[in-house]
Amino acid sequence: MTQPAISPPAGHRAHRFGDVVSVVRALTPGYPVYCLRPALIAASARRFLSQFPGTVMYAVKCNPSPMVLDILYRAGIHHFDTASLPEIAQICETYPDAQAYFMHPVKGRAVIKTAHRVYGVRYYVVDHENELAKVLDETGGGPDLTIVVRLKTERADAVLFNLSSKFGAPPDEAADLLRRVAARGCRTGLAFHVGSQCSDPSVYRDALALAGRTAADSGVGIDCLDVGGGFPAYYANMQIPPLEDFMAAIRAGLKEIDLPPTVELFAEPGRALVAHGCSLLVQVQLRKDDRLYINDGIYGSLSELCHADIRVPVRLIRLDGRPAARLRPFVLNGPTCDSLDVVPGTFDLPEDVREGDWIEIDQLGAYSNAMATRFNGFYPETFVEVHDAPPAAAS
Amino acid sequence: MTQPAISPPAGHRAHRFGDVVSVVRALTPGYPVYCLRPALIAASARRFLSQFPGTVMYAVKCNPSPMVLDILYRAGIHHFDTASLPEIAQICETYPDAQAYFMHPVKGRAVIKTAHRVYGVRYYVVDHENELAKVLDETGGGPDLTIVVRLKTERADAVLFNLSSKFGAPPDEAADLLRRVAARGCRTGLAFHVGSQCSDPSVYRDALALAGRTAADSGVGIDCLDVGGGFPAYYANMQIPPLEDFMAAIRAGLKEIDLPPTVELFAEPGRALVAHGCSLLVQVQLRKDDRLYINDGIYGSLSELCHADIRVPVRLIRLDGRPAARLRPFVLNGPTCDSLDVVPGTFDLPEDVREGDWIEIDQLGAYSNAMATRFNGFYPETFVEVHDAPPAAAS
Repeated sequence: MTQPAISPPAGHRAHRFGDVVSVVRALTPGYPVYCLRPALIAASARRFLSQFPGTVMYAVKCNPSPMVLDILYRAGIHHFDTASLPEIAQICETYPDAQAYFMHPVKGRAVIKTAHRVYGVRYYVVDHENELAKVLDETGGGPDLTIVVRLKTERADAVLFNLSSKFGAPPDEAADLLRRVAARGCRTGLAFHVGSQCSDPSVYRDALALAGRTAADSGVGIDCLDVGGGFPAYYANMQIPPLEDFMAAIRAGLKEIDLPPTVELFAEPGRALVAHGCSLLVQVQLRKDDRLYINDGIYGSLSELCHADIRVPVRLIRLDGRPAARLRPFVLNGPTCDSLDVVPGTFDLPEDVREGDWIEIDQLGAYSNAMATRFNGFYPETFVEVHDAPPAAAS
Repeated sequence: MTQPAISPPAGHRAHRFGDVVSVVRALTPGYPVYCLRPALIAASARRFLSQFPGTVMYAVKCNPSPMVLDILYRAGIHHFDTASLPEIAQICETYPDAQAYFMHPVKGRAVIKTAHRVYGVRYYVVDHENELAKVLDETGGGPDLTIVVRLKTERADAVLFNLSSKFGAPPDEAADLLRRVAARGCRTGLAFHVGSQCSDPSVYRDALALAGRTAADSGVGIDCLDVGGGFPAYYANMQIPPLEDFMAAIRAGLKEIDLPPTVELFAEPGRALVAHGCSLLVQVQLRKDDRLYINDGIYGSLSELCHADIRVPVRLIRLDGRPAARLRPFVLNGPTCDSLDVVPGTFDLPEDVREGDWIEIDQLGAYSNAMATRFNGFYPETFVEVHDAPPAAAS
């Protein structure tokens, strides 16, 4: 591994446009185009960095586009929550001064070894004694290593996905794991994840209380505490308190538990930093009454709209003439031959929408390109930068 | 476009092994491995070619791996159902003597133009007058062009996915489209798709009767008829008649309708040719009681197990010692951080399965690698050839 002199990354800059209409004029794209709004992503990152009383790791899985990572890096995010060797390699090879943290509770042996020896990763999450044994086997353990025990949290109604259904040790097992970690001479940590798109700040406070009890029960002083992800994006159909309220709940929760003042504190936002900073420009390829056949769908950028009750704003763009003022609900059909490739729900668009029109679908910065397949030969991969206000700003 | 002398393709051959255990011994893979069984795929292709009374097109979307395409090509499949420019390019650039057919009812304008001008594609499916107008605009129409009208079929209970929910013109509109095609001097065709994984041969007979009535109503002699895909694979949990019964139903259906003897006949099998010709080798990375955390999941090769009630055989492979004879049901958790990444249902495996064991999951040749994402940095892409009997042969 050559280690280049540390300098701002070479830069994965997309072509820049003043606004989305200019993108359409310049490219008249028959393929989907991701429209990044760097200013929005950077502002979210800086807001989180200034408000969170610890280290902010970006959850790479949420949007691993090199352009998104560069925007975040330039905004001051230099710590990354990574869950696989490709994610670790992407971060460590692009940003030599950044830190990758292996925050996945289940890892392959060869992957642990490579993360440790090749990429120098020093933080590893575990939620089971056998995983702890693997990490110790493959890294050798020791005081350079921080082993973070992932704690199972109570199922909260206020979240979109309950990650504790798959990961996390119950409190008594977590306390036992902490003792084992300490006994092996490693630095100790506790982590939790309240679940995705959390709409209730008190969920963090409750999870912190559980973490505090677990740490106390273990009898081990912990060196780090990771409050995880789950910080919400502001989708139109959800009532979400401001970020300040989440930070206040975290500060209150921290005060209530007895942690050493030297404890390292981490958070892992993903969606909250990027969801509203990228829209998708699609083209209408055919209209059948109230059904529009567009060039992206559930196997491409829109899969999350199937799993989560997220409503995202849309606007029509037409180059030759003005669309009707009156709106009508339309169903969006994706481009594959598959009959499942239909976006759930309807989207209000001008009643005269027609083949050749473009639709900007907003707030698709999270879990869109990250989850795209190449099914049927379709794969959205064009990114541009735009500097206008997004459709969400109007709604 | 240079046209090289026609010869067998250069060959995308995977590394060859006698059996799956040899793969495990040689690679001890910590990553997922697709185990192709070329003899099974070739046998299915030859069976279909010998029994279907027309031209067999392979539906590329089902498994577009270059190795799978080569096996099919060498077995005699030289016609391909393609639905996007990348699929058309893949076929035409790899197999200069093969034919790509643009069988997607909704196409982008630039894509139609490129398919026609660059790749010489001559068959296009439409199911709406505006799509017909697009195809005529972009190709210029004419007697070299066959325009195939896709007919909406009745919803059949015997299929897994009802493709007519998304595509197909009702019979009266289809007849009108046929007249428009003929009036523009193009060759005419009718197509239908009964739906995926059809378990009842009579569904084809009914669809043929509908096609016959539509052709007669149109008053236009049709030049080609495409009975589509939907031919089933033989999964363990389904009662499926033999392929001969489907062919008998198609022959009977054809006899009952009045078609000119010169009509070109097509079928588009996908799943039926490849499903049982590829298994997936995964490794157990962690066990928690009855939950196994493996290195592939619903964002990789196993997504179809979420959407379809398909049961596939599994077998354990262990290099150091023998697994227990007694089986127990286990839940398979995928490798991403996502809580949805859990395979529905359970899989019976030796009760002492443990970290480091491998599991061969059979009958994943269809809609597996074709639908894989790179979510969280995981992407299964290793293919090997094996020449043993698959787990399904034992069940």
